[in-house]
Order: sequence, then structure tokens, then C-alpha cells
Amino acid sequence: MIKRLGSGIYTYMPMGLKVIRKVEAIVREEMNQAGAVELLMPLVQPAELWQETGRWDKMGPELLRIKDRHGRDYAFQPTSEEVITDVVRSEIKSYRQIPLNFYHIQTKFRDERRPRFGLMRGREFTMKDAYSFDRDLEGMQKSYKIMYDAYTRIFTRFGLQFRAVAADNGAIGGTGSHEFHVIAGTGEDALVYCPSSDYAANMEAAEAIATGSRAAAGAALAKTATPKASKCEDVAAQLKIDLKTTVKTIALTSEKEVDGKVAKQYFMLLLRGDHELNEIKAGKVPGLNPYRFSTEEEIKEVYGCAPGYLGPIGTKAPVTVVADRTVALMSDFVTGANEVDFHFTGANWGRDMAEPSLVADLRNVVEGDPSPDGKGVLAIERGIEVGHVFQLGTAYSESMQATFLDENGKPAPLQMGCYGIGITRILGAAIEQNFDDKGIIWPTSLAPFELVLCPMGYDRSEMVKEETDKLYAAAQAAGIDVIVDDRGLRPGAMFADWELIGVPHRVVIGERGLKEGNLEYQGRRDAEASAVALADIVSFVKGKIQQ
Amino acid sequence: MIKRLGSGIYTYMPMGLKVIRKVEAIVREEMNQAGAVELLMPLVQPAELWQETGRWDKMGPELLRIKDRHGRDYAFQPTSEEVITDVVRSEIKSYRQIPLNFYHIQTKFRDERRPRFGLMRGREFTMKDAYSFDRDLEGMQKSYKIMYDAYTRIFTRFGLQFRAVAADNGAIGGTGSHEFHVIAGTGEDALVYCPSSDYAANMEAAEAIATGSRAAAGAALAKTATPKASKCEDVAAQLKIDLKTTVKTIALTSEKEVDGKVAKQYFMLLLRGDHELNEIKAGKVPGLNPYRFSTEEEIKEVYGCAPGYLGPIGTKAPVTVVADRTVALMSDFVTGANEVDFHFTGANWGRDMAEPSLVADLRNVVEGDPSPDGKGVLAIERGIEVGHVFQLGTAYSESMQATFLDENGKPAPLQMGCYGIGITRILGAAIEQNFDDKGIIWPTSLAPFELVLCPMGYDRSEMVKEETDKLYAAAQAAGIDVIVDDRGLRPGAMFADWELIGVPHRVVIGERGLKEGNLEYQGRRDAEASAVALADIVSFVKGKIQQ
Repeated sequence: MIKRLGSGIYTYMPMGLKVIRKVEAIVREEMNQAGAVELLMPLVQPAELWQETGRWDKMGPELLRIKDRHGRDYAFQPTSEEVITDVVRSEIKSYRQIPLNFYHIQTKFRDERRPRFGLMRGREFTMKDAYSFDRDLEGMQKSYKIMYDAYTRIFTRFGLQFRAVAADNGAIGGTGSHEFHVIAGTGEDALVYCPSSDYAANMEAAEAIATGSRAAAGAALAKTATPKASKCEDVAAQLKIDLKTTVKTIALTSEKEVDGKVAKQYFMLLLRGDHELNEIKAGKVPGLNPYRFSTEEEIKEVYGCAPGYLGPIGTKAPVTVVADRTVALMSDFVTGANEVDFHFTGANWGRDMAEPSLVADLRNVVEGDPSPDGKGVLAIERGIEVGHVFQLGTAYSESMQATFLDENGKPAPLQMGCYGIGITRILGAAIEQNFDDKGIIWPTSLAPFELVLCPMGYDRSEMVKEETDKLYAAAQAAGIDVIVDDRGLRPGAMFADWELIGVPHRVVIGERGLKEGNLEYQGRRDAEASAVALADIVSFVKGKIQQ
Repeated sequence: MIKRLGSGIYTYMPMGLKVIRKVEAIVREEMNQAGAVELLMPLVQPAELWQETGRWDKMGPELLRIKDRHGRDYAFQPTSEEVITDVVRSEIKSYRQIPLNFYHIQTKFRDERRPRFGLMRGREFTMKDAYSFDRDLEGMQKSYKIMYDAYTRIFTRFGLQFRAVAADNGAIGGTGSHEFHVIAGTGEDALVYCPSSDYAANMEAAEAIATGSRAAAGAALAKTATPKASKCEDVAAQLKIDLKTTVKTIALTSEKEVDGKVAKQYFMLLLRGDHELNEIKAGKVPGLNPYRFSTEEEIKEVYGCAPGYLGPIGTKAPVTVVADRTVALMSDFVTGANEVDFHFTGANWGRDMAEPSLVADLRNVVEGDPSPDGKGVLAIERGIEVGHVFQLGTAYSESMQATFLDENGKPAPLQMGCYGIGITRILGAAIEQNFDDKGIIWPTSLAPFELVLCPMGYDRSEMVKEETDKLYAAAQAAGIDVIVDDRGLRPGAMFADWELIGVPHRVVIGERGLKEGNLEYQGRRDAEASAVALADIVSFVKGKIQQ
């Protein structure tokens, strides 16, 4: 299917390219159907445009930078916001010309530090990227919805199991965003969803709800020796208690320039022992943007204790104590004593220490957490991100002065959205989702061929050759994407090759069957072959394809 | 159609991209039909491969070189000989697997010093490049012929006037080569052909034949003052003689390393006053590879005279006198006297000087020259090179050790051919060939749309809207690539736009015509519109398209 040329760089061999072309055709049809207009923007883009939006400096070494023979700077496009905004600012003058949505299907390059997972995280890849332009937020959200619906149709037509999840907007800003994932156990991303409602978000964005109320304090506070137990797991094991009754502490530092000087602020984040910090959520705590983990020196200086034994009891200003929502509802819990090799048991808010300065959602959700929409509990599965829709707003149009004249003749910045599909990544994701020990199992819409004809003795039997040729022509006439294997291999080797490639439908043409008027059909997922009458075979296969 | 982003870098706007896609579809169909197999090779290619063939060093700044984040070197492909040879050397083991022909349609970058003529000499462009692999010279020539024929079909289907011409093989080596040119008065290249035979070559390769025999000397040799006349044109004007009786001299130097020392050889090339030196042909004179024009110092030292007055009389070893074939047959001619401000008249070979050391084809042919095949005289027209087929031989397979096992189990280097079509350049060339003062005149097969419907009052007249919508659906159903102009412009502005874009067929739908059952049809080259019955219009237009 593909052949590695260099790190993260692949040649698409004929079979792989056929799949890519089928992906592209479906994407193109649905994009056109949704009113988007195709153009083709260049790969090599002048640095000046990237400097206008600041991305030339903001993007690190992932942006592949090129110097031409005259020493001028260019970027190999990772996406094309700058170029499309440049096109549009010279083409769109009036509100009468919008809404507009332009897309292209074009090669991208992202100089990943460690390209891995083959096509999943390659460096050179093909992406469909679309950009919508509207007069106001409402229009932009309408364009966004049109794309969201088009993506749903596209992934449905691919025949892949997928899930759209709400995503965090990240550093790009903007007001809304969804990712489209192909479900696969090997996926890089954790997807959170509620089986009894339509709630779905990626792990970064999924909200952790704490329900119920805090129980009254039942135990007395006691300082307990926990030698060499700097982790909650070790503490729970030593004290023979449930990990869920422990609280762990994460010390963070936020450095900000104030009046030309660097000022440091310290934060103590508290999570239940079995929970994981969600770093995106931490960045949304007031005062914690930006943040980093505190250094050992800072911890010793601020808390008077080595890391591993910190806790909220005795911790005071200037440290801000931020409790995760779950922790804020705990009572009789175990937490560090701010003294090496010691923890407190029976700790209680209000009694043993002040209520936390802030309560926030700090953790990753786990299976069984209540769904934020109140309609059940959350489940988690793994996915491969293959699409992303994004409400950009006016970030690009403002920095690049892409305006239009509104009904009152006043200039206003265009409201933008952007919409990507990883064309070549679909190839990898489809395989990760659909394989068995024999090889790939392509969904019919993406298969390099829908049907393979395997004649037994194409070069030996005149009858076999004649019927194979006739069947090939008939299948083609019926619009079936068909191939004949005339290599003359033994049946076992021939079948194994096509099972490996994953062609969904196979018909074997043999003399014995022909004499009885039968051919042997087997679907890629079928355990056994079945006999089908020669006269019915094309409509039989056509029916299977249309299922 | 296109929009400039930077020097030699363009965005293809929707109409331009539609043309590109039609070009690609025709190329793809005919390549597949000819048995070639499509794959897709990457743009960013590791330097190591380019070092194997030596092209990393041989190619100058035209090769765009890239460093990734780890400082590793890459080339942005200008062509893909190295990558395909690398693919093939790991895939092809036996003579049973060949012949094979792989192609891709992919973006290229050539860092031209002065990008110009828009798409004609851009830097980023799309090319179809194919590479054939055969076991021997005969097989390779067969593959070459198959591609030559496919190219002929491709350019015929484009509906463009084109000409295939024999080309010089240039520095790449190999054994045969043809260029395919779109005929256009603005073309960069001069094409030589014989209207009464199938002889055709580009100017570099077209052979100049000298016919007849040398006339006997009729005039006496005389040294004549030609003050300040260092050019043949000036000499002829001063002496009131035909430029064709003068001979001009070009002094060349060839420097070669011999036993570690640089040895210089001097050559005096003689051309008829009205003829032009063909620098490619000069390089093929024995001893003249490589060569350069002699410096003024060298000329004064070797000939004892300033440039502008050199001539063969009195010139002797170590200078090699090389006469163009035409000059070798001249008698009673005028030539420099090796003395500033003086020429000889009545010069004759054999009598006034030795016969030339060498006689060679040194000049560009001119209109009216005899055709090398003896079947008439040559004509010249201008063209834009859009395709090139090339017999590569074993240059790449030998340097990259791409071998196969022959019938005797012995490894042999693969015989290669390479075949290019400038996909995006076709867009420019088609326009250069087909335009008038109103705009472009697309051939139907490349037009962004085959038919435009221009309703008069689409948003005012229910009847017009209804008939337009019906006609649009009927045209689509008939397989016509149709567009409706529903912008509501006045007829003049609307027609002017579509004439500028060059859509070949136009139908106007108006209330008055509809009441009489008529529509107005006009072809892009027609002087006037004609009325066509509503009921016949689709088959009428279909007929026009198929013409």
C-alpha cells in the first residue's frame, strides 16, 4: 500500500493510491454538495504572509522553512489560513459576496520531532482544508454546522465507525470546535461519550462533574509515618486503605512579567489519589496561564518540604490551594503532612484547614463518571483523529485586514471557520479499525477494488478464461470496480494475497463449478465460500456491495 | 483562473482548477490505457538518494534544497528519477516482472532564476512524470513508442494544435528524445518542420543540409578597407554586397585537463554572414566539448588581431578552422583579414587558404533550408514545450544498482525511459494558442464549463427561471458540463464575462424567445447568435460539443 522513503515520508503504491483517490472523491463530492468551492493553493508560501499573522514566529520547528536561491524565506504549508485569507481579502469586497467556503486537497508538511505510527503521524501527508467566510457570528456558526453535517455524511460514506467529539479550542482561539475520530483500539486519543445521550468530547475537553455533598468529618486528624511513600499508591498500600481516600498534591508555578519584572505565583493543585491531572484544564484555572511544574528548589523554598509529601494543611498564602471538584467534596482523607515520610489521615476541610481557595475541574474523567448532561454515566474509547472543524472567528481576518463592507457601507472583519480532513490518515485509520489475522478488511467504499476475480487456470483452460473475461466485462458494465488475478498462482497463495490486501468480495471461477453453472463467492468477512449461479453472479455481488 | 502568490507561485482559482482537472483526467485515462500504473511519490526527498546519482551536486540552485529540524538535507522534487528507481530496485527482481511503467501526477518545484511568462516558467507547478523499466534496449524503445503514441492521443484529445519534434538529448545522456509543443506565436521555442514530410525537430536538433557544389573561383582576392565594420551586416552595407556572400568568424577555446595541467585548444568557426551559430551543434564538433567563447586577450594573442576582423586566410595551426557546411561550399566570399578595419573580398577555399580542417553542421536552420529527409524545404513556427519523452538508458539504474535477473539468472541494469507532461503549463499554453480580443477560446475538452446558460431575468420571470432550471437539469443529464449565470447582471456584462472566461457554448433564455419556443445559441467563435428550438437545444449543443 505504502513504501517508506524517509522518516515520515511515504510513496503511495498503486493499491494505496487507489484508496486515497476514493477517499478524495467522497470528500470532494460532499464538499461540493455542501456548497464549498475547490481551488488549489501552493505548497511553498512566502514568509511575509506568515509574518502578518505572527505564525512565522509562533510556530516552532514543526513549520518547515525553506530559503530559495535568492535567500528569501518560505514555509512549506502545514495549513493555508494565511494564503486563503490573502486570496479572500483581495476578492471579497461586499457582504453580497458572502458566505463563501473555499477548500483544497493538497500536500502538507509538518516537521514532527518523532514521526511515528506510519501514516498516523507522518510528516508529508495530504489534507483537505476548507475555510469559510461569513459576515457575522451567526453566519459563521451556520457555515460551521453545514460543515459538521457534511463531515458526518463523509465519514458515514467511508463506512467507518466514527465519533464526533467536542474539542478544546487550544491556543488558536476561536469559539467552538469538534474533532472527528475513527474508532480504533490503537488510537492515540481517548474519546469520552455518554452511551445514553449524545454527549461526546475528547479527554481534554470532557467535563468531570462531582455529585452529592461532603460527608461530615468522622475521624480525628492524625500524623502518620509513611516512610518512603511519596506516591498515593504507596501510601494506600502501606496504610492498607482505599486509594480513593487519598489526595495528591501537584505544585505549579506561574511566571508573568509585571512592570518589566518576572513575578512568580505558586499554586497547589489537589486531586484524588486515583485521578489524573488534565493539563489543559489546569491552564484554565484563573492565574494559571501560563504555568509549569514547580522545581524541586521552589518546592523546598515555598513549602519547606521535599516533593512527595506536600499537603494543604498548614499551606497558606501566597500559595493558592486549588481543589478538584471531587476533592472539595471529600472528608476524612489522607494527604501529605509537608514533612518527609509523613502523611495526615482523617483530614477534613474547614476543620483541619481552610476551605480551598478555588474549586475547579482539574482532572481527566474516568469511566463511570456522571455525564455532564445528567443523562447517564461516561464511557471511554480510543480513536484516531481524522477530521477537525473549528470556529476561528476573526483572529486571522483582523491580523490580515480581511474586511468586507456591510449593508451600511462600513468595513467589518470576516468571520472565519476552518475545516480539515486528513486524507492520507484515513487510509491508516481505516486499516487500524478493520483487520484480522489474514490482513485488511476494507469497507466497500474505500477498497482498492470492490471485487477480485480469481480464475483457476486462466492460462490453461479456455473455458475459464472465456468466462472470466465475460464476467470481468459484465462487472465493469455494472459499475463494479473489479480486478482479475491472472498471475497464475496456486489458489492458496492467490487467496492469501487478496485477503491481505482486503478486497471485500471474491469470486472464484473454476472448470468444475462452471460445468455445473456455478461460481464460488466469498465475502472478506465470511467464514466460508458459497456457490452462486453464473447467471446471477453480477447482480448478487452488486447487491452485496450496496448493502 | 490563477492568482499570483509569489514569484513563480500561483493559486489556481476554481475556474483554473477545473481546467487542470480536465487536463489531468485525460492524461490519466490515456496513461492507464497505455498500461502505465499510477502511484504517488513524495515531494520532499532525502538528499542521500540524490547523492547516489550525483544530481545533488550536478544540479545547481534550480534544485530547491531543504533542511529539516534535525538538519538533514532534502530536495523538493523537480522530477523523481531517483525515488522511482529506488522503489523499483526493491520491487523488481526478475525479468518476468517487466516491462513496467509507473507514473504520478504531482507538484514540482524548480527554483528558476527569473520566473516569467506566468505558468510557462513558474517555480511551483504540476507535472505528470512517468518512468518505464525494460530488460533491454529494444524493450525500452517499444515502451518509448507506446508513450509517444499515448502523448499523441493526449494532445489530440486536448483539442490543441501541437507538434512532436526530435530533440537533442542534452546533458542527461540517453539515446533518443522528442518534445511535444503546443503551437503558439508567443512560444519560447522555435520548431522546425517540413510541410511536405513528417520531419520535425526543435531548433537545437534540426540538421542544416548544404546542397549543390562549390562554384569555381571567379574573382581575385583583394584586401579592402572596411573601417569600423566589425560585423558582417556593416561590411555588406559598406561594400554594397549581399550579406549572403560574407563569412563571419567565431573564436572558441576549449580547456581540458591533460596530465594534471590545463591545456587550451583554439577553434575558428566560420558561418555565412546571415546565419546563426547553434551552440548545441558547436559542442558536438570533435574537441569542442566543453567550449567557451575566446576572450579578447586570447584572440589578440592567437590571431594577432582584435575581434571583429578575424578570418581563415593566414590562420594556421594550432588553430582548428571549422567551416559550416554552407561556408565550405562558398566561393568568392568576403571574410576578415586578421587586421583591424580590413576584410578580404573574393576569397576562395584551396586557392587563398587551405581547405577547412573540419566541415560541420554549426548553424541554426532557416526557413527554406532543404529538409534533411530530402522531401522539401523547412518551415519554422513557435511552440510551447508541454511534453517530453526521453530514452534514458541505464544512467540511473547503473548508478543506483537497479538490476534484475535475466533469463540466465544474471543481473543486468534496467533500461529506463522517462516521460513528462507539464499539467499546469497546458493551461497557459492552451490560452496562448486560443484567444481573441474578447478573451480565451477554450477547446471543449479543456473548458472549465462546456455550456453556460444565461437567463434574462432569472429572478424576475417565473417562466425564465423554470425553463432555465429544466434546461440545466436536462443538460446535466445529457452529460454536458453546464453552469447557470444567476448573478442577475445585464446581458452585455454577463456575455462579456463568459467570453472572457472562454466557455465555448452559450445559450440565452429570454421571455420573448420562449414565447416563440426558441432559445438563442452562440458558439464562442461564432460572429452571431442563432435561434434554436427549445425542444432541440440539448441535442443541438451536444452535437456541437461532439464535433
